[in-house]
Amino acid sequence: MPDQMQHITLASRPKGAPTQDNFAMETAPVPEPGAGEVLVRVHYMSLDPYMRGRMDDAKSYAAPVPIGGTMEGGGVGEVLTSNADGFSPGDMVLGMFGWTTHAVADAKTLRKLNPDLGPITAALGVLGMPGFTGWHGLMEYGRPKAGETLVVAAATGPVGSMVGQLAKSLGLRTVGIAGGPDKCTLATDRFGFDACIDHRAHADAKSLRTALKHAAPDGIDIYFENVGGKVLEAVMPLMNPHGRIPVCGMISWYNAGGLGAGADTTLSAPALWRPILVNFLSVNGFIISNHWDRLPAFLAEVAPKVLNGDIKVVEDIAEGLENAPGAFIGLLDGKNVGKQLVKLI
Amino acid sequence: MPDQMQHITLASRPKGAPTQDNFAMETAPVPEPGAGEVLVRVHYMSLDPYMRGRMDDAKSYAAPVPIGGTMEGGGVGEVLTSNADGFSPGDMVLGMFGWTTHAVADAKTLRKLNPDLGPITAALGVLGMPGFTGWHGLMEYGRPKAGETLVVAAATGPVGSMVGQLAKSLGLRTVGIAGGPDKCTLATDRFGFDACIDHRAHADAKSLRTALKHAAPDGIDIYFENVGGKVLEAVMPLMNPHGRIPVCGMISWYNAGGLGAGADTTLSAPALWRPILVNFLSVNGFIISNHWDRLPAFLAEVAPKVLNGDIKVVEDIAEGLENAPGAFIGLLDGKNVGKQLVKLI
Repeated sequence: MPDQMQHITLASRPKGAPTQDNFAMETAPVPEPGAGEVLVRVHYMSLDPYMRGRMDDAKSYAAPVPIGGTMEGGGVGEVLTSNADGFSPGDMVLGMFGWTTHAVADAKTLRKLNPDLGPITAALGVLGMPGFTGWHGLMEYGRPKAGETLVVAAATGPVGSMVGQLAKSLGLRTVGIAGGPDKCTLATDRFGFDACIDHRAHADAKSLRTALKHAAPDGIDIYFENVGGKVLEAVMPLMNPHGRIPVCGMISWYNAGGLGAGADTTLSAPALWRPILVNFLSVNGFIISNHWDRLPAFLAEVAPKVLNGDIKVVEDIAEGLENAPGAFIGLLDGKNVGKQLVKLI
Repeated sequence: MPDQMQHITLASRPKGAPTQDNFAMETAPVPEPGAGEVLVRVHYMSLDPYMRGRMDDAKSYAAPVPIGGTMEGGGVGEVLTSNADGFSPGDMVLGMFGWTTHAVADAKTLRKLNPDLGPITAALGVLGMPGFTGWHGLMEYGRPKAGETLVVAAATGPVGSMVGQLAKSLGLRTVGIAGGPDKCTLATDRFGFDACIDHRAHADAKSLRTALKHAAPDGIDIYFENVGGKVLEAVMPLMNPHGRIPVCGMISWYNAGGLGAGADTTLSAPALWRPILVNFLSVNGFIISNHWDRLPAFLAEVAPKVLNGDIKVVEDIAEGLENAPGAFIGLLDGKNVGKQLVKLI
């Protein structure tokens, strides 16, 4: 049993895109679990866009990470010692451990994983928060109907690929948007999108919109929103009457603190608001942590599809805690291919 | 029976706020009704903000009025001659006659009015499209709950006053926004709002927001949106988690063609979009003409409340077709007090 652990703290708040300077790798004694707690050795940690929001101190649905605090995040790991009923050393668990090699966690916040039901990393991606986000947003707020057209950006990411695959299986035309030709090939060839547009090949929203019109000749019924910016600007005028927009993120605007004008878009507030009115759009923001009651339904429906290969899994795995900041910076810049993980052991 | 009628046509498309030059008063022969049609002498015509949208040729939910075409609009009038079963001379009817003294209309598009159930002008306001818009938007998309707080602008208009009175009767705290101290007095003393803010006393969204915070100390659960601009900018950061925004108009942006930045606001697209995400807002655009199936339910619920005085009616009546353009220009500038009508006979 080691007596020292590593963790990554928020050294300073980023102005715009985060840099390595915003993070500090620190060493600390491995903590002792109290009553009802377990000590976990993290095997894989998840990197997700929402973490960018926690680095700011703007009002949001979650408190910001304090300066000097451990960066937040989910992970899967092995129980080393347990002071909680129902958990034993060797159990694999999912929890919000943070960017850390070891963590003490309240057993009530953990979900025990069954490695026989597939790779444990799925609990961080396709069968975890991102996949659950895609499923819930699509089914609850997207209200998909066969024959309609869906557009989703970050199409090869864990949310976008879930949305696209589910929509395709329900008989929708699916149009992905991704960064670069390799990701577009992945979107169509592996995730089954009917079309994929490389947003990097389009310098502005107008050009992107022309490509979208071609890929979605009947207009857009569902735009699953996770990026904002140029893509949102391109999409809004193409929304069909009675269209639906589940809003689960706006990654392109995170680095602007969510409040800047956005470097890659000239979208004005009226141009964003007017299509909601004139096309009777239904726009719903959500965060999946408000909907844990739906998790059993999600797992019951989607886990079998992952096991039998109907829903594909693509992961991008960085090695070592020290590479987490770089991988995260890359994630915000779209450098990852598939679900971004960090392997710690 | 006269053989000449007057009507007002769209002479040119406005750039920004409409002017008298955009309208032309014309004389034409009174048309003859064909089979299934009736000839109507219009007694009152309605002026409504949506008409500004029809003067542009931007894509919207309805076709623009062509240059030289009669301005569109609803009215109530008397059947002069009828070639339709079920309609007789002397019947009072509601229809989309346009800005005109006489019109031939397909009887299937008309609703016969019973003058014994209240003044026929109610069919253009509190019991017509504006009142129905307020009721449907509030009940369907606002999902009001006792103890919550509702904000609506144009609080003394026919939509806003309906929304406020209904919400108050359901146990909500109601905060109106109106232009000028007289309208604010009307909002609180006659329409029963708990508070009213004079937006003209606040030069920018920040100042207006401070006043709103004071009037809505527990935040805003429902923002019934009919104005856009400065009010929207002030409201968005005050929306509570799980808040709802029915969107039925954006009058402050109509004169900008719905696409300009808006002279009175610095609201950016990300600042508008981000609260939807972080506060899980539900934003629904609608136009009441998609929901005629709900009209019987609306009339059954609200007509008795109008007759017994629970729902108040305030009308602003211009005299003569020649004064319709001026009254409409004033309406867009907030000069009317209550439902704007034009009396033609």
